[in-house]
Amino acid sequence: MEKNKAAILGASGYTGGELLRFLLMHPHVEASYLTADKHAGRNISDVFPHLGGFLDRRLETLDPDALPEDIDIVFLALPHGESARVVKELHKRNVKIIDLGADFRLSHGVYRDWYGEHPCPELIEEAVYGLPEINRQAIKGAKLIANPGCYPTSAILGLAPLLKEGLIEPDSIIVDSKSGVSGAGRSPSLDHHFCEVNEGVRAYKVGEHRHMPEIEEVLSVYSGTGVNVSFTPHLIPMDRGILSTIYVRLKKKRTTAQLIGLFEEHYGGERFIRISPEKVYPSTSQVRGSNFCDIGMRAATENNTAIIVSVIDNLVKGASGAAVQNMNVMMGFEESAGLEAPPIFP
Amino acid sequence: MEKNKAAILGASGYTGGELLRFLLMHPHVEASYLTADKHAGRNISDVFPHLGGFLDRRLETLDPDALPEDIDIVFLALPHGESARVVKELHKRNVKIIDLGADFRLSHGVYRDWYGEHPCPELIEEAVYGLPEINRQAIKGAKLIANPGCYPTSAILGLAPLLKEGLIEPDSIIVDSKSGVSGAGRSPSLDHHFCEVNEGVRAYKVGEHRHMPEIEEVLSVYSGTGVNVSFTPHLIPMDRGILSTIYVRLKKKRTTAQLIGLFEEHYGGERFIRISPEKVYPSTSQVRGSNFCDIGMRAATENNTAIIVSVIDNLVKGASGAAVQNMNVMMGFEESAGLEAPPIFP
Amino acid sequence: MEKNKAAILGASGYTGGELLRFLLMHPHVEASYLTADKHAGRNISDVFPHLGGFLDRRLETLDPDALPEDIDIVFLALPHGESARVVKELHKRNVKIIDLGADFRLSHGVYRDWYGEHPCPELIEEAVYGLPEINRQAIKGAKLIANPGCYPTSAILGLAPLLKEGLIEPDSIIVDSKSGVSGAGRSPSLDHHFCEVNEGVRAYKVGEHRHMPEIEEVLSVYSGTGVNVSFTPHLIPMDRGILSTIYVRLKKKRTTAQLIGLFEEHYGGERFIRISPEKVYPSTSQVRGSNFCDIGMRAATENNTAIIVSVIDNLVKGASGAAVQNMNVMMGFEESAGLEAPPIFP
Amino acid sequence: MEKNKAAILGASGYTGGELLRFLLMHPHVEASYLTADKHAGRNISDVFPHLGGFLDRRLETLDPDALPEDIDIVFLALPHGESARVVKELHKRNVKIIDLGADFRLSHGVYRDWYGEHPCPELIEEAVYGLPEINRQAIKGAKLIANPGCYPTSAILGLAPLLKEGLIEPDSIIVDSKSGVSGAGRSPSLDHHFCEVNEGVRAYKVGEHRHMPEIEEVLSVYSGTGVNVSFTPHLIPMDRGILSTIYVRLKKKRTTAQLIGLFEEHYGGERFIRISPEKVYPSTSQVRGSNFCDIGMRAATENNTAIIVSVIDNLVKGASGAAVQNMNVMMGFEESAGLEAPPIFP
Repeated sequence: MEKNKAAILGASGYTGGELLRFLLMHPHVEASYLTADKHAGRNISDVFPHLGGFLDRRLETLDPDALPEDIDIVFLALPHGESARVVKELHKRNVKIIDLGADFRLSHGVYRDWYGEHPCPELIEEAVYGLPEINRQAIKGAKLIANPGCYPTSAILGLAPLLKEGLIEPDSIIVDSKSGVSGAGRSPSLDHHFCEVNEGVRAYKVGEHRHMPEIEEVLSVYSGTGVNVSFTPHLIPMDRGILSTIYVRLKKKRTTAQLIGLFEEHYGGERFIRISPEKVYPSTSQVRGSNFCDIGMRAATENNTAIIVSVIDNLVKGASGAAVQNMNVMMGFEESAGLEAPPIFP
Repeated sequence: MEKNKAAILGASGYTGGELLRFLLMHPHVEASYLTADKHAGRNISDVFPHLGGFLDRRLETLDPDALPEDIDIVFLALPHGESARVVKELHKRNVKIIDLGADFRLSHGVYRDWYGEHPCPELIEEAVYGLPEINRQAIKGAKLIANPGCYPTSAILGLAPLLKEGLIEPDSIIVDSKSGVSGAGRSPSLDHHFCEVNEGVRAYKVGEHRHMPEIEEVLSVYSGTGVNVSFTPHLIPMDRGILSTIYVRLKKKRTTAQLIGLFEEHYGGERFIRISPEKVYPSTSQVRGSNFCDIGMRAATENNTAIIVSVIDNLVKGASGAAVQNMNVMMGFEESAGLEAPPIFP
Repeated sequence: MEKNKAAILGASGYTGGELLRFLLMHPHVEASYLTADKHAGRNISDVFPHLGGFLDRRLETLDPDALPEDIDIVFLALPHGESARVVKELHKRNVKIIDLGADFRLSHGVYRDWYGEHPCPELIEEAVYGLPEINRQAIKGAKLIANPGCYPTSAILGLAPLLKEGLIEPDSIIVDSKSGVSGAGRSPSLDHHFCEVNEGVRAYKVGEHRHMPEIEEVLSVYSGTGVNVSFTPHLIPMDRGILSTIYVRLKKKRTTAQLIGLFEEHYGGERFIRISPEKVYPSTSQVRGSNFCDIGMRAATENNTAIIVSVIDNLVKGASGAAVQNMNVMMGFEESAGLEAPPIFP
Repeated sequence: MEKNKAAILGASGYTGGELLRFLLMHPHVEASYLTADKHAGRNISDVFPHLGGFLDRRLETLDPDALPEDIDIVFLALPHGESARVVKELHKRNVKIIDLGADFRLSHGVYRDWYGEHPCPELIEEAVYGLPEINRQAIKGAKLIANPGCYPTSAILGLAPLLKEGLIEPDSIIVDSKSGVSGAGRSPSLDHHFCEVNEGVRAYKVGEHRHMPEIEEVLSVYSGTGVNVSFTPHLIPMDRGILSTIYVRLKKKRTTAQLIGLFEEHYGGERFIRISPEKVYPSTSQVRGSNFCDIGMRAATENNTAIIVSVIDNLVKGASGAAVQNMNVMMGFEESAGLEAPPIFP
């Protein structure tokens, strides 16, 4: 059977590269059309030598009108603002769209507070937040998916079962996240120059990172109650991975075993969630290259608090893997199609 | 003038190596006698090639009775428990002692809860907690110093001004710390094998690290009120450095500028504390190799919380640099003697 | 159709983990029986959390007699010497054997010079050196495969076309190799402790590494002429990857383009060899996690020398991927079965 | 006594930062005037937070005419070409000049072959190559110093004793160098973006790096015979350090012990050269942050070849430390003034 055809707009960055890797392993979809303005005219294997021999595609200039007729699904890996402008054009066509950027993740009001005017507000309501573990039904019928941010994915998956159960004070949540450098993208900058990052750790955008309102809004909608989060991202010297350490106050006394039981029940059928046993906390290295979110936890019964540790590969479950998972849900494929290779360690 | 003579018991580990580095730069003290059971009989430059040409000393077997008569000060860099047994012997002599281990940091009761029976309880009361920034007077007259733990140093220095001012809820404190690998010492183990640590981040000993009671007890004594801390250490792929992100609830509304003003006033004359300006947060790479503790902060006036980011080099301000600073205070030298070389970046 | 059953003896090290990863992706073979003396009784996902949910297998104590009857192929990832003793027992049975260790790579005389007495000399002649790119026919019919060393794989593949063509002086060869740390295995040691390796590079076993005679003997047999190699391995701070820079003197004037043409022709049908275009030299990061050997080169016509740069993932083409490739050849499967996932970058 | 005053033109890069670090430890010279076009108007501690509290200096725009009258010595850490234009202006004044760039390292003809037209050819002859270990007398009287390149320093110091003795074939030399990333400077670029470098090693500019003619010309002059070098630089994932592995053919049979003896005699009084004992090879981590060049070696008597392993910190002995050493020689200070702090490990 002929494969479905995907376009990747912004194919030369790290999320573009990972989309290509997963599509190369996908039974039903192939990467058929690629754009990358900075590298237009070059072959994809020039900018990603690791893909040499796998894929022979020219990188095109981004032009929504030039998108071939036979494209079934479009992935956008573009700077924020640019995504929305392209979506506006593509939406007229009969094509499914997954935006890996931030343009359709927030409600209009919140977007304006954090980013300014929205280039395409009329489509915000239609966009579906693409985290299947909390939103699968809506994704099934969606035409336009807002793929979640990397930090929010790790935070939301670590909090959803507790909030759903009404077990935590929704204004007590602290999310302390540690990220590898690939989350910052492939464009050179002093902040991500090798020697500036290596052998150091730093906090950045303390209390003002744009993923904070995303976490708050998604969890508020999900739990039906206003959620406030104190969010601090940190940059650490590694390529991939996010570990979020989440601190909450519990409304009721719960043991660690009870919390683990709650998470296991909540995420029972989920292919990409793994719950660690008591006293074991996941490392980002155990999800490297894969679409898993691994979660460990500890309750302190003496003061009704709990700590949840959630790890993902920021480029996979935090970006491209999630996008492929969303595509699978939208298009009716096995949800794990293309995503079944085990993590790679060490 | 002849230099004072120091002994280092346990000289072949990382803290031993750093003590040697600082003593080599010290105007008034020299490393005169070194022990390292595992390497007894070898020259120090065999186990630390970087010191080749600087120091020609044989490593001896540890034997308190064999300590030369002319030693003025003894640094102990030994496993916990062993320190206390050696201190018991050395204490009979007229020699100053700085224990870089954990044996004399806690009160007797707390020690028992976390470590078991103490090998030398009669000296616990005499020992002085060696953090000059909160305890300088007591250090001046001390004979036996308990050098602080690395995590506690970063946490205590980030909290002391707020607690002294009575500004924070003492049971609301969360300390999320990220450490380089040298804090785990130089003995090989799977947990600190290169490929197990590199390209990953993990939490460990969540809620049960022995530095938690140290932070709580020291801050309780310092502030005169019972302090509770939720402490989570993380291991990240770098050699040196600790960054502690500290979350507190404020009793009164304070702006970031006000908090910074408070810290600057509190630490006004301190040589080894640097306060970052508003919106700037320190990286561990800016204190590498040095005795500094750099602190940045942000207040959230909307909900009366604050985030403090505190960085040290765990082997320096978190261990050997602090020990030399303590020695300087005890022996009446310039407090920064031997510690004046700038940090090394990158 | 039921899958063939594989046993992995020594499953808890890095090569064991990678064998498991590739078998999990293999259409015709499954890992059915695992041993790991140090961890006997534990589940494989306790020692390799990244494989959690993929494989539920108990680790057994190594005992050749206890190997289940239904095993079709055995992979040995054991210390040298131990392999040979186990092979001696297993050889009596109707089972294919792939030894990832060094016991059957060398002729008897050379083995004795470098390792001492051989525990099972009677099987040395039967063993086939498992590098399909130079030895495919012999592998097809083999019962016992000696899987190549990691350094030799990178060196031999970079030299074979030139030697086959009689193009280089066989006593002029210099191989300067740089390896990630996983090549040293998973057993903790000071030399591979994080802080000893990170932020440094060193040469080791200069002129006396046991992979040197392997390179020399294999290439001598392959080219029919005595080959001498000066081999210097280096350890660099990364998990995976070997880059070998090879310096040779050419017997005849050749341009870079001519050399590239020669390599492309020689390796024409090879699935796992990729030749870089002129002026491009491969990075180990472009083969990470994959079974590729990528090769770039440059001829200096003014003095008839050439430099070849050859990169592999030491755990894959340098160990477990090659073992699976050998298995595929031995058992008549598609040679790339289980090995088709693209490299992972970054 | 008042200190001499130094200017650093191009103070915001890594070599600028290291010059500042060493001058802060210097007894007789202070950094008095700093330029950095990109950051003009900012304080040096804004671009180098590690120097906060040590130095309060505004960064100026580069303008040779604006150089204060009281400057005694000028360090240039500028892009090639720009250096020469500035030197042309500064040379009119009574000021000593140390150029850390490449503009005055080569003879006019060789410069033209590798860089094109020289902006200030009339001063090339006057410039003295600033490697005190081979050129101390000329440096003493010099007004203009060409500070050596980082790779050449490691290569030349590893070869000088052998060439001086006439012991090696001067056309057989292979230099395989591995460098940390700081050698590429502080300007962001894709090639030195964190994720492009981390977890990988690659060769670059094979056979066409501009440090190759520098090595050849300096050694030819030094030894009085034409020297040809095959030079291949590699980039490895660490901040600092160069390790050069040097392969040579010996004209006469020599044992390793004899070679070591030769090096020890040759470099007898040198403060910054350390020779490793037999069977020991230096790691870059043992010179980190220091001005040492450590050298180990092995002779293969069976075929009259030798391997020399030479390590430096590229930012120190390969750049700023060497510059301070040159200044000390030029100005009559103790040669190690400001450079006496031990290396920092780990």
